[in-house]
Amino acid sequence: MPAVESTVQVRYAETDQMGVVYYANYLVWMEVARVAYCREAGFEYSDMERESGAYLAVTEARCSYRSPARFNDKVRIVCRVTEVRSRTVRFAYEMRRGGELLATGETLHAVTNAQGKMIRMPERYRKFFPLSR
Amino acid sequence: MPAVESTVQVRYAETDQMGVVYYANYLVWMEVARVAYCREAGFEYSDMERESGAYLAVTEARCSYRSPARFNDKVRIVCRVTEVRSRTVRFAYEMRRGGELLATGETLHAVTNAQGKMIRMPERYRKFFPLSR
Amino acid sequence: MPAVESTVQVRYAETDQMGVVYYANYLVWMEVARVAYCREAGFEYSDMERESGAYLAVTEARCSYRSPARFNDKVRIVCRVTEVRSRTVRFAYEMRRGGELLATGETLHAVTNAQGKMIRMPERYRKFFPLSR
Amino acid sequence: MPAVESTVQVRYAETDQMGVVYYANYLVWMEVARVAYCREAGFEYSDMERESGAYLAVTEARCSYRSPARFNDKVRIVCRVTEVRSRTVRFAYEMRRGGELLATGETLHAVTNAQGKMIRMPERYRKFFPLSR
Repeated sequence: MPAVESTVQVRYAETDQMGVVYYANYLVWMEVARVAYCREAGFEYSDMERESGAYLAVTEARCSYRSPARFNDKVRIVCRVTEVRSRTVRFAYEMRRGGELLATGETLHAVTNAQGKMIRMPERYRKFFPLSR
Repeated sequence: MPAVESTVQVRYAETDQMGVVYYANYLVWMEVARVAYCREAGFEYSDMERESGAYLAVTEARCSYRSPARFNDKVRIVCRVTEVRSRTVRFAYEMRRGGELLATGETLHAVTNAQGKMIRMPERYRKFFPLSR
Repeated sequence: MPAVESTVQVRYAETDQMGVVYYANYLVWMEVARVAYCREAGFEYSDMERESGAYLAVTEARCSYRSPARFNDKVRIVCRVTEVRSRTVRFAYEMRRGGELLATGETLHAVTNAQGKMIRMPERYRKFFPLSR
Repeated sequence: MPAVESTVQVRYAETDQMGVVYYANYLVWMEVARVAYCREAGFEYSDMERESGAYLAVTEARCSYRSPARFNDKVRIVCRVTEVRSRTVRFAYEMRRGGELLATGETLHAVTNAQGKMIRMPERYRKFFPLSR
């Protein structure tokens, strides 16, 4: 499975009084990129929740900010899966404006049921997250 | 039931590049004020959802912006119930910094079940929303 | 100037524990639609702020919620200018999922300088907001 | 300088359809805790920006999520400075509901001017961030 690229255009709502995008919003863009990754991999994340009762709950997130995104920028987010275990999945992200690297990030997710208890990735979704070697 | 006053201190996250609070965030403050209203009236809104499966779904919201709130401001929100029917409740809000009026708002809510279907206000919660004459 | 249509795909971040989009986020979508309107009309709103120091500050906003938007929905927002005066502009919005009307809204804006003082719409931007008769 | 404790009460706006707080919002709470830290240390962060033109721009952020915060929870955030250099400051955070640890986090900040260029911490603010040995 190759990397999947998404694009967001910066909303006014996402800026702060420093005139740049508020730092927490990069995590929202990572979510947008993850959902696009799932779609490209072959399933809608919303279906995974609804049909299998399986959730990708975030257990760790980090972001390194290199250069600030600004209102109206088109930000490309490259998302890849960097680690898959029976109950966890790790995603990595690169956010760019044109060729310029704005930020890199990473999220680690536990597969859980609706009650938040860790479960194994449902059988039918395993193929979408090829085990890394 | 008199008006109930809450206070929020403006978060950096709530500002935008105009240097003032982004307009949608006033609706979040109205929610904070409604929840405080319920608490003062005698119940936790979270209990109403959890125990009675009754939700106050917003069907209309409006806000008039007079003077912008800024980062770090302490904003007082006065909230009152202005209309109660068997299946709807209306709240009004005044937001002030010191004596200065920043904004006024209003929300209309339908009482619904978890599926979003309109229901009558559960018996045990009616006393907290005295019927207007 | 005809209506301009934009599309947003609902983000997980935009939902709340009721399982639907939190009500304040519809105002964010209205902003997305306004910015798209400006682009279609012939200018970038970001340029208007940066080059002319003119801002469209929101003075009133309202939204009527008919049917809730949900995670992953593609929401189309039709935006039109419904009133133009020398110092104010009014936009109206219709938000739909497929043919279904989810919400309608309206925002009134004052043209201001960077300090928030009302000014006349800069000459070069007037043509993008044809005066209504 | 000891740790500084703040409290936020979870807003409905901060939850998502999983029924828990959306992961990016913990970073907003870290900001609330940082601003409270500054106040306790002896200055308003808003004054630092306005009077000295010095900003604490986030260059790295991370959060580990142990147990989810839910609507209406009172979340205590303990914030401490863990590293100070001439041009950077590092904060660490612990978020708890009662005695239960919900999350830990960390942010690294560059001191910058309004244009985002790294500068030395202004003289008058150095005393509030005692250099670590």
